[in-house]
Amino acid sequence: MQMDVTQLMLEMGAAARQAARAVAASTTAQRNDALLAARDALDGARTALAEANAEDLARGRSNNLDAPLLDRLELTPARIDNMLEGLTQVAGLPDPVGAIDNMRTMPSGIRVGQMRVPLGVIGIIYESRPNVTVEAASLCLKSGNATILRGGSEALASNQAIARCIEQGLAAAGLPAAAVQVVGTTDRAAVGQLISMPQYVDVIVPRGGKGLIERISREAKVPVIKHLDGVCHVYLDDAADTDMAVSIAVNAKTQRYGTCNTMETLLVAASRAQELLPLLDEHYAAAGVELRGCSQTCAILPRAVAASDADWGEEYLAPILAVKVVETLDEAMSHIARYSSAHTESIVTNDHGRAMRFLREVDSSSVMVNASTRFADGFEYGLGAEIGISTDKLHARGPVGLEGLTSQKYVVLGEGQVRT
Amino acid sequence: MQMDVTQLMLEMGAAARQAARAVAASTTAQRNDALLAARDALDGARTALAEANAEDLARGRSNNLDAPLLDRLELTPARIDNMLEGLTQVAGLPDPVGAIDNMRTMPSGIRVGQMRVPLGVIGIIYESRPNVTVEAASLCLKSGNATILRGGSEALASNQAIARCIEQGLAAAGLPAAAVQVVGTTDRAAVGQLISMPQYVDVIVPRGGKGLIERISREAKVPVIKHLDGVCHVYLDDAADTDMAVSIAVNAKTQRYGTCNTMETLLVAASRAQELLPLLDEHYAAAGVELRGCSQTCAILPRAVAASDADWGEEYLAPILAVKVVETLDEAMSHIARYSSAHTESIVTNDHGRAMRFLREVDSSSVMVNASTRFADGFEYGLGAEIGISTDKLHARGPVGLEGLTSQKYVVLGEGQVRT
Repeated sequence: MQMDVTQLMLEMGAAARQAARAVAASTTAQRNDALLAARDALDGARTALAEANAEDLARGRSNNLDAPLLDRLELTPARIDNMLEGLTQVAGLPDPVGAIDNMRTMPSGIRVGQMRVPLGVIGIIYESRPNVTVEAASLCLKSGNATILRGGSEALASNQAIARCIEQGLAAAGLPAAAVQVVGTTDRAAVGQLISMPQYVDVIVPRGGKGLIERISREAKVPVIKHLDGVCHVYLDDAADTDMAVSIAVNAKTQRYGTCNTMETLLVAASRAQELLPLLDEHYAAAGVELRGCSQTCAILPRAVAASDADWGEEYLAPILAVKVVETLDEAMSHIARYSSAHTESIVTNDHGRAMRFLREVDSSSVMVNASTRFADGFEYGLGAEIGISTDKLHARGPVGLEGLTSQKYVVLGEGQVRT
Repeated sequence: MQMDVTQLMLEMGAAARQAARAVAASTTAQRNDALLAARDALDGARTALAEANAEDLARGRSNNLDAPLLDRLELTPARIDNMLEGLTQVAGLPDPVGAIDNMRTMPSGIRVGQMRVPLGVIGIIYESRPNVTVEAASLCLKSGNATILRGGSEALASNQAIARCIEQGLAAAGLPAAAVQVVGTTDRAAVGQLISMPQYVDVIVPRGGKGLIERISREAKVPVIKHLDGVCHVYLDDAADTDMAVSIAVNAKTQRYGTCNTMETLLVAASRAQELLPLLDEHYAAAGVELRGCSQTCAILPRAVAASDADWGEEYLAPILAVKVVETLDEAMSHIARYSSAHTESIVTNDHGRAMRFLREVDSSSVMVNASTRFADGFEYGLGAEIGISTDKLHARGPVGLEGLTSQKYVVLGEGQVRT
């Protein structure tokens, strides 16, 4: 069995590598046609999708999956509508492929520029959310890549039903079926093989919990675009506007608790702590947010409990907030450098020089002035789509849209030039 | 001893991580001052450099190093002049750090852009060429990064003497000494540790032979910007100008044999083989280039020997050329897709449509029309400097200059916006 899975994945890899050349050479219209034809195929297959999904749900229930997992697994009619709408939107986005930047003429007479090109073959590993199958496939195809999708085994039947619709879309546009392949086995060895074939797979994008992503990053023999945790900070500076400070610090924590761009630690300038912390606490207490504070915070807000060192690095994803009073901007930035996961940090200040220092010196994928960390998102940034948020420094950093699934090669236009 | 090296490298890593914040926050003028002060220090230390280098050379001779290695190890007065000139040039390059691209206002009112920022800490592993110490240190510092340099053990004394001069330059500009650290042990365990500290090192750039780079890529726990081999192709199309075809195909092979952008395989359209191959062979024979051909090539050029399959993937770095006659542009591109190392390929043609297909569909770091592959070089491309040529697809592809040692983070400027 193990041998068969290895063989299966090698064959899928070779087919993807071959299909990638055809996808890269296809026209924008062809790829958009494929997306729209897949949408129509999904729309026409609602009954089949519902049946396949019911099969997954029944198996999930008999395997005692917990309620949130069953919820994410379910393909309601509204979620199918969302998938169709997503395909329409991706088809409507500008094609990143083929754009040439920085074209310049050199002293030798050659013209040199950089052309945006697909990465090649992208492997996506994700949990049991069938809508991710459509979303990931559409972004990879739009950006000119072939893709191998390996979703959670609980969604096997749903994903296979979706795969048949995508295949119809590809066929309608004259693109090879191997441009989008959905792994059809639940054998976990398939993942191990998928991340170990640099000859066939150019990059892996894991989507899921931190444990999954850490394991894949550790074991992969292929580059990984990874999104680990979001330990995001808001720093309320000495020169912060009071209303703005309260509005942003409340929004960044309470607008949603479970997202990676939610604030997990609040830093407050010592000169403003006596004034701001009680104002903030009215909102936090009303929202039921538990506070874990430094000694100064606890002295000002008696309901806060003492934070342990572990609290400063914790991604709560819950109505819990760590709060620390800092003496200076430098202390705030040092705290961030030490404890942040380098996802998103924001300063609230009316002092331009301090805003610029924060913007420049804080080494996170998104650095903000006078805005809620909750804006760190591909849609809010105008990328039109988001395959994930990268906490890596190389290649793509922050929200990854279509451009993050491409690379740039040098192109040289000559008229017979040779080196002398 | 092993334990001591691990401890030493961990301490260097922690110091580099801390210094990286200071370098990233430094001004352009400070970094340029450090480069120019290091230049002056090197200029004033010529006697000390000569003594240290003599020590390395004497040890190398007694260890029976071969002549090319001893040559690369030697710091002649002319090479010291070149190092000084390099520092002056790097100081004069534009600073990539801090530039903000793509600034736009979103419907929410936030302004979003991407700021170019240093990568952080760069580890450079290289062979026994002391001039690389200065070159790599200067490019990393200019781009706002801290660096840990690990040169070949044969150059230990030379590298330490150079390190002292760089340290003087850093001190003169008020930058921390740990901004540039040269590993002072010849213990090979230092390399293993350097590539295994993702908490302290953001990227490794190995410079050297394919064996070194493959080993480091395999073992590294840190991203690697790697430059493997250059199996470069020139394709002489049906619509090639005769003189241009001969000029480019001769230059690409014979201008220098040992460089990675030298042509290793020539592809010739069948319709032109009878005409072009004899013309080319006049030059190749005169230059002493051995030909390894397909059966059609051997039929036209009797002095060619039959190529084996291994020849098509070979980086000769020598006066040897593989030659293949192909029926169509598609066959040429399929051959390239199969055998190329994705470094540099060039088409010679006057047919615009075929030129554009080649440009778009060939998946190499440099793709050229009517120019010699020998132009694939950071200086010829106007980058002003080159730390290497990347054959990777993610992050930097092709010649890597200062920009390749940086990344982009998102910056958001708000006026109190919150998510609703």
